[in-house]
Amino acid sequence: MEENFLLNTPTAQYLYQEHAEKLPVIDYHNHLNIQELSANRQYKNPAQLWVLNDPYKHRAMRICGVEENRITGQADAFEKFSAWMSVLPRLAGNPLYDWSVMEMKRVFGTELKPGITDAKLLWEEINAKLSKPEYSAFALLERFHVEYAAPCALITEDISPFRYFQKLAPSLRGDTIVNITKECIDSLGEMTQTNIETREDFFAALETRLTAFEEAGCRFSDHALDDDFVYYPDDGKNSGRFLELRQGKELQGEEKSRLASEILRFLAGEYAKKGWTMQLHIGARRYTSSRLRAMAGPAGGFAGIGSCCDIKNLTRMLDDFEKGRYGLPRTILFTLNPADNAAMSALSGSYSQDGVAGKIQQGPAWWWCDHLYGMREVFENISAFGVLSVFVGMTTDSRSILSFVRHEYFRRALCGWLGEKVHRGDLTAGREVLGKMVEDICYYNAKRRL
Amino acid sequence: MEENFLLNTPTAQYLYQEHAEKLPVIDYHNHLNIQELSANRQYKNPAQLWVLNDPYKHRAMRICGVEENRITGQADAFEKFSAWMSVLPRLAGNPLYDWSVMEMKRVFGTELKPGITDAKLLWEEINAKLSKPEYSAFALLERFHVEYAAPCALITEDISPFRYFQKLAPSLRGDTIVNITKECIDSLGEMTQTNIETREDFFAALETRLTAFEEAGCRFSDHALDDDFVYYPDDGKNSGRFLELRQGKELQGEEKSRLASEILRFLAGEYAKKGWTMQLHIGARRYTSSRLRAMAGPAGGFAGIGSCCDIKNLTRMLDDFEKGRYGLPRTILFTLNPADNAAMSALSGSYSQDGVAGKIQQGPAWWWCDHLYGMREVFENISAFGVLSVFVGMTTDSRSILSFVRHEYFRRALCGWLGEKVHRGDLTAGREVLGKMVEDICYYNAKRRL
Amino acid sequence: MEENFLLNTPTAQYLYQEHAEKLPVIDYHNHLNIQELSANRQYKNPAQLWVLNDPYKHRAMRICGVEENRITGQADAFEKFSAWMSVLPRLAGNPLYDWSVMEMKRVFGTELKPGITDAKLLWEEINAKLSKPEYSAFALLERFHVEYAAPCALITEDISPFRYFQKLAPSLRGDTIVNITKECIDSLGEMTQTNIETREDFFAALETRLTAFEEAGCRFSDHALDDDFVYYPDDGKNSGRFLELRQGKELQGEEKSRLASEILRFLAGEYAKKGWTMQLHIGARRYTSSRLRAMAGPAGGFAGIGSCCDIKNLTRMLDDFEKGRYGLPRTILFTLNPADNAAMSALSGSYSQDGVAGKIQQGPAWWWCDHLYGMREVFENISAFGVLSVFVGMTTDSRSILSFVRHEYFRRALCGWLGEKVHRGDLTAGREVLGKMVEDICYYNAKRRL
Repeated sequence: MEENFLLNTPTAQYLYQEHAEKLPVIDYHNHLNIQELSANRQYKNPAQLWVLNDPYKHRAMRICGVEENRITGQADAFEKFSAWMSVLPRLAGNPLYDWSVMEMKRVFGTELKPGITDAKLLWEEINAKLSKPEYSAFALLERFHVEYAAPCALITEDISPFRYFQKLAPSLRGDTIVNITKECIDSLGEMTQTNIETREDFFAALETRLTAFEEAGCRFSDHALDDDFVYYPDDGKNSGRFLELRQGKELQGEEKSRLASEILRFLAGEYAKKGWTMQLHIGARRYTSSRLRAMAGPAGGFAGIGSCCDIKNLTRMLDDFEKGRYGLPRTILFTLNPADNAAMSALSGSYSQDGVAGKIQQGPAWWWCDHLYGMREVFENISAFGVLSVFVGMTTDSRSILSFVRHEYFRRALCGWLGEKVHRGDLTAGREVLGKMVEDICYYNAKRRL
Repeated sequence: MEENFLLNTPTAQYLYQEHAEKLPVIDYHNHLNIQELSANRQYKNPAQLWVLNDPYKHRAMRICGVEENRITGQADAFEKFSAWMSVLPRLAGNPLYDWSVMEMKRVFGTELKPGITDAKLLWEEINAKLSKPEYSAFALLERFHVEYAAPCALITEDISPFRYFQKLAPSLRGDTIVNITKECIDSLGEMTQTNIETREDFFAALETRLTAFEEAGCRFSDHALDDDFVYYPDDGKNSGRFLELRQGKELQGEEKSRLASEILRFLAGEYAKKGWTMQLHIGARRYTSSRLRAMAGPAGGFAGIGSCCDIKNLTRMLDDFEKGRYGLPRTILFTLNPADNAAMSALSGSYSQDGVAGKIQQGPAWWWCDHLYGMREVFENISAFGVLSVFVGMTTDSRSILSFVRHEYFRRALCGWLGEKVHRGDLTAGREVLGKMVEDICYYNAKRRL
Repeated sequence: MEENFLLNTPTAQYLYQEHAEKLPVIDYHNHLNIQELSANRQYKNPAQLWVLNDPYKHRAMRICGVEENRITGQADAFEKFSAWMSVLPRLAGNPLYDWSVMEMKRVFGTELKPGITDAKLLWEEINAKLSKPEYSAFALLERFHVEYAAPCALITEDISPFRYFQKLAPSLRGDTIVNITKECIDSLGEMTQTNIETREDFFAALETRLTAFEEAGCRFSDHALDDDFVYYPDDGKNSGRFLELRQGKELQGEEKSRLASEILRFLAGEYAKKGWTMQLHIGARRYTSSRLRAMAGPAGGFAGIGSCCDIKNLTRMLDDFEKGRYGLPRTILFTLNPADNAAMSALSGSYSQDGVAGKIQQGPAWWWCDHLYGMREVFENISAFGVLSVFVGMTTDSRSILSFVRHEYFRRALCGWLGEKVHRGDLTAGREVLGKMVEDICYYNAKRRL
């Protein structure tokens, strides 16, 4: 891997080396396994660390026609590792190609050359290292200079492990709250040792849990607004809907959406009150192939990008939240469909709060958009339709502990993009201004939210 | 400011210097205040000219967390000026950064260095000049080589001031006609000294006013097709709807849209008859934060970008207009959502008229899209999906008299973009062809519409 | 025309010269006239070959205001040729400018210089050559190194001419099947000498014809999913709907769509069974100007780009197909609205099949998107959201036999784009990997589907 990868101008190299490279990592939302982390897991073999648990890689193998048996099936760990290695050279141009090279370089110091590196030799080289303490889960966090990582947790999840780790805090995954079921209410009641009968009881129990999350360091929540999501303002009937649900009736369609809207409205107020940042993940199409869903589970890497966001519905929701008792919380809009980039970035000018820079803003390129092309599009959009210097910057949203290399990738992409603008003469600000901007985006803007 | 700003190839510099730079400015649609212009206003202080009246700047300050008091509130002019100056370095990458530098350079000959230039010193420097006659409103038009500027006026507005100024003509802002109210009908009746009872009376009064606009030099009209707009063909019931409205009934939903469609259909025919150009401003989401709307007014800089345009509805409307007695007028499609760029540009091939080049076409990058990134996207789209040489070119659509620098910005962006294509070898046409194209886009294509 | 047109880096030149240039052409879907081909037509004059039959050129002339009389009207062939020549220099930036230069160079060896080359002299130069055997329709196929070309044919079309030409095979144009009419059923019955009364009879007749197509070399089908298309799963009532249609009732709205969905579902299964590739052409807005439609016919060059695709509907359809007895066939998604690019490319990860690389994928830039800008956007999207190396590559989808130059244009665009990535340092794969990728995209990936 080239020292100046993605840094093809002197300005880019300067910005990266002097302002970005050495900053610690704040990863404010991811899907790391807190059990693995709290057990300080040692990985049994290279596949377990690198391949078995990464839906991005599974997806790429499927596109290349690899048999499912060697992806998620009965094949042994080395076969799966080999299948991944065999596919890698075909992925030139896809971010997985570069991430893989970076993962091997940064963690094991080895130069992976897709199509040339021998799978068996690489397996052995990594395997020999994995049992050492410097490759445990926690040691990997150190290696990546992680200062703060926030694996997401459900409201009913046991978050006590977070207490023991200064670097770790939960981010609240709100989907099971908003799409509430009777079972979830029961769990919540048990967990908070309360009897939840009414909407008010439910909200009180939520408040108890939110306080527990806050005490565990939580500062971010997230909600998926998938392509079926519709927001409804309050019609005064949500207490009734909650009672119906509580009594075992399954709400459907608009009834379900109205109660979901009511809960999200409540939560937004709570987040605002606590100073948390609300992440909205907009535009996934999670239902594609039923076959793959049944086989690989809901997060199995086969999700698609949904149609463009209904901006009218979104703006009404945000307006309603702003009108609420505690106002709109700081909000990050993640869009999976890049055709929504401009509309999302432009919303940063539509809600504001005295003293809060970047109150509402587009988030970093998310999920399938997380690659050089996607990142650069987001930089362009935030810069042109919003204000780049207030951008909250990167989070991995990943299940793989190796994905922290993506912060390096992001920082290189950002500095490379800025450097090109300076080189072309489009960006006339001096190095001091740009250096500060890079530091804010790569670290301080997120840090200020903790 | 660099002499070759945005002109990073020899071809770009040649095209700008030899073909673009010295052409007069035709600004066929803007929001300048005709009262200020006709009074040849002298600006009282730098804030009044540069900050107080510019929703773009207000928006950027809000995004950076500046307190509203120092944007639109009680703070004094210098405080607001200072607030703006303090925010400027944070806007690197946003067009306001460059426009501000250009405004200070072109009007006051001063090199503004965001983050370095002292606000107090700049205030004093500008203030010392503002009372001189060469900084009056009209002198500024001269300074920017404005040959024709068209501030928009409502149908019921007094357009007599336009008579006295050769450079100024109204562009008709059609929204109060299409979304007609009883009050507007009353005003129109008064103004035309007619008794408006029926749809026919209404149309006759409109014709009277359109003729008055024409005599005042009007050649452009504009209509906002916001994200709620739906077009309906004639169902034969619009005379009845008009009578209901006349009698004080408020039309709602489809009834309202059907009457609006009828009026727009009538107007389109009138524009065609008169040889005017109809501008359609598509895709704004003007309702976002109720709080900001109440505080800063409907044009307060907090509007968002709406969802993509309903192309089926739009093409049906244009087809209906084309079928009308006078046919479709020349039409410029402005889109606020850049995800609509290709669809808009492609429509240029869908309606045509013998002898009319560029009959229907995408307009220049509009409002929040008016920046280097947005302009280049529009150039790419018009060029690839349409024909760039017939492009009508830039208009500011701005409330600020300083925004005429954006014509320079546009010309540099265009020449820079063409120069890069030549440099890369993608664009093989010779300098003569490109020089003519630049002149047509920057001046003659608009001029031919006057 | 420059030898290194679009190849502005050493890597681009290497990839093109060593890996792309000499490969034969596989054009898996176009609209060539099989009668003209099978008669080995000699073209009567330059207009007949170059202008009269090309809706792309007609469209560009209309945009430039050329009178319809000199496009599709009564003017003679030379007048139309001259009209086209006069418009050419105004098209700088549009793909037609470059294609025209390439067409003249590759077919007649002449350097066309738009705006300089004299129309009369060019006419005479070409005319002198046209009667020679090396400019017959078949000789042109040879000249372009066409190995396989697939003009589309309707299910009821006589495909016997295809039997005599090894290079030619039909691609099935499925729209008349899906939007079935009584007349089409009658033709199909006659052609297959069966009595079609029921849905089962209909499907049996289709099978007979599909087998005939297969025997004639057909390996690709295509279906237009225009902006009105809605897919419905089976509700068990389609036998009934078919009977109604058979008895002369015209189905409307949802009824029509449900039967169309049923037929498409059946066909998808057949395609899967036969190992064909199904092309879905998504997002055209074919109804724009009724005037132009009446004058120039449905394929007259005035079609627009429709609104974005309903991804939910599309994914449900594909899921339904996948659940079918024979599964989902290999599928190529062509999108006319580039705002759909990311969503389309991302779908490649959503359906998969053991052993099939690129089972479902975005197709090459289609129709109005077929230009350098559109192609590069598609490369970016497939590369970032999918896997570029499995990309099926170019097909012209054109009515003009000269359009085979677009394969050269595509290959140059691809190699140029890759070369720039390598030059910038974004793409780190070596020449061996990239050379193989280029060969696969330009030839082998399509070849493997024959």
